[in-house]
Amino acid sequence: MFKRRLFTPGPTPVPEQVMLRMAEPMIHHRSPEFQKMFERVNNNLQYLFQTTQPVLTLTSSGTGGVEASFVSLFSPGDTVVSVNGGKFGERWVKMPRTFGLNAVEIKLEWGQAPQPSHIQKALKEHPEAKAVYLTHSETSTGTATDVETLSKVIREHSNALVCVDGITAVGAHEFRFDQWGIDVCVTGSQKGLMIPPGLAFVALSQRAIAAMETATLPKFYFDLRKALQTYKKNDTPWTPAVSLIVGVDAALEIIRSEGIENIWKRHERMAHAIRAGITALGLKLFSECPSHAVTPIWIPSGIEWTMFNQILKTKYGITVAGGQDQYAGKIFRISHLGYYDELDAISVIAGIERALHECNWKFQAGAGVKAVQEIFQMESPSSR
Amino acid sequence: MFKRRLFTPGPTPVPEQVMLRMAEPMIHHRSPEFQKMFERVNNNLQYLFQTTQPVLTLTSSGTGGVEASFVSLFSPGDTVVSVNGGKFGERWVKMPRTFGLNAVEIKLEWGQAPQPSHIQKALKEHPEAKAVYLTHSETSTGTATDVETLSKVIREHSNALVCVDGITAVGAHEFRFDQWGIDVCVTGSQKGLMIPPGLAFVALSQRAIAAMETATLPKFYFDLRKALQTYKKNDTPWTPAVSLIVGVDAALEIIRSEGIENIWKRHERMAHAIRAGITALGLKLFSECPSHAVTPIWIPSGIEWTMFNQILKTKYGITVAGGQDQYAGKIFRISHLGYYDELDAISVIAGIERALHECNWKFQAGAGVKAVQEIFQMESPSSR
Repeated sequence: MFKRRLFTPGPTPVPEQVMLRMAEPMIHHRSPEFQKMFERVNNNLQYLFQTTQPVLTLTSSGTGGVEASFVSLFSPGDTVVSVNGGKFGERWVKMPRTFGLNAVEIKLEWGQAPQPSHIQKALKEHPEAKAVYLTHSETSTGTATDVETLSKVIREHSNALVCVDGITAVGAHEFRFDQWGIDVCVTGSQKGLMIPPGLAFVALSQRAIAAMETATLPKFYFDLRKALQTYKKNDTPWTPAVSLIVGVDAALEIIRSEGIENIWKRHERMAHAIRAGITALGLKLFSECPSHAVTPIWIPSGIEWTMFNQILKTKYGITVAGGQDQYAGKIFRISHLGYYDELDAISVIAGIERALHECNWKFQAGAGVKAVQEIFQMESPSSR
Repeated sequence: MFKRRLFTPGPTPVPEQVMLRMAEPMIHHRSPEFQKMFERVNNNLQYLFQTTQPVLTLTSSGTGGVEASFVSLFSPGDTVVSVNGGKFGERWVKMPRTFGLNAVEIKLEWGQAPQPSHIQKALKEHPEAKAVYLTHSETSTGTATDVETLSKVIREHSNALVCVDGITAVGAHEFRFDQWGIDVCVTGSQKGLMIPPGLAFVALSQRAIAAMETATLPKFYFDLRKALQTYKKNDTPWTPAVSLIVGVDAALEIIRSEGIENIWKRHERMAHAIRAGITALGLKLFSECPSHAVTPIWIPSGIEWTMFNQILKTKYGITVAGGQDQYAGKIFRISHLGYYDELDAISVIAGIERALHECNWKFQAGAGVKAVQEIFQMESPSSR
């Protein structure tokens, strides 16, 4: 017997009942059965994003969803401001440049989050900016951005659209599309939504929809005007990933029944506990402003990543994520995004304790799991 | 008890063992397990396309796969010739125009297939053409194109790349990428590959790969150069639809074990039998050059499509496809593409007989199923 546990920030584990729903016989996407299901999905996606605005479903990865926003909302030469605080923020600088947009980069050290002053400065220097792209939870650095505050700053100082990469944040961090004045938010299926990768979701405000009317960048597959037209009939412009939409339907049912605010709190508690466990083992956290979705940790000197990871994987069945780009071999990342409960947090810290011990790292046996338990006892809803 | 049977040209039914494979716990796409599986998938895709060239896997519908070929191979102002003999051919005229290509349209009546003379004329008038796009099996009209012959014609008369929409053809019609001198062929997952929608596959010749080096149309998500680079390491540029790739792995195992030539013959036999059954019921076939994947049939006067379809669906659990665009309500289409055997052909004709009878269509009871049986007895491998 060998059990595997996945702690990566996408794909994330899929609830068993959702897996089985996706294994049901195929239905046709131009049928009343599909339309009825898609209508329910569309309603529940609005709940997930906390919006009354349309949330469009695309068959692509999250990157495709962000591309759809660039090509559908802007015209060649338009200026957009992008925060680059990691691998994904960097992508939101490169991508618009590819399509002939003028991307103004706010470059941060990995592990830092953008501050109001960064945004104000960029908007002052570029009053022509049509949009600001923020990464709510930068997966590569496990760093959270205060989207609520920055959205206010953007709206106070400009008419720029507030565009959010919510790919690892939606379903983990508090997010209120309407109340916070967000114009575009993209997420992917393999994150807080707990289903396999293959779908992207794009929420659009009325300002964003108006911008699409005059945008001239060429687009076809990722044309959100087409997706919006068909959305109104609970349909899609191209054949959608039907089985994944069945999965979203099942997952959103779970999300509604837990309640989105409870889900945000659960993720916050999980993140606190994981950080406490890691710190108690004498390891150091990487991010200055940690995400609730994923926790990056410095690999201490004396521990060799390949060996540590090998032990975690082959002896304890645990898959975590390594560092990306310049942080490969220097940090590792534990995801706690989606289908995880408190006992999963204990399990991953327990596995890490065991693997660290086998790498001759010195700490008191059980220090990590004890710290996790203390946080949960202190923060559990029943003890408050 | 109510059994449903899907006879639509995508999504097509998914074999039960493939459904269950896709329901297995999620694995991470940057892991040795995934890479090992993806290597096997990549090898088996070459078998499916009958090629030694790379076959790239994209997370999108088939339409996204064709878009990837346009944006990755061409530069603004390039001329491409597209055959428009139906809804999909029409899309391959509109799409390149969207991206600033000069698309020369060979317009045919629905139900007609392009002839060598059409291609020769277009290439004579447009010697600058960089490519010719053919639709191997036009799903909207159930019409097959003689790709082998036309590929020869294109290569004899030009240096244009031979680009094939093989979306409903690959895995149904004989297709030999290398031997026929094809440069680009696209298919989708929900067709002959028998898995749910959400993946596109693009095979590229060395000439096509060379064309990508100088192509300047902007692209990011659909940049096949990036997909080709990662392909060499059994990886993908963006998070792929992991569960669907697991499905492709299982489906390609089935395909290899049946043997691609046997699969082509099975589809041919199925198409013959369905056509014979339909004709024996006094109905008329729509296409002049019928596909082996889908059979379109004129709805005879006196039969009202909505009522007929309603009976088929609610009494016999059979979903067929209606006509598209100007043929809505005028034709219907039976798919026999993918996971179907001879007894499925009997079942669908039997259901159609019953529904026609209930619509007061006159014919001898059992005429359709008898004709189907005769074809199978005559054409079965054992009786030859």
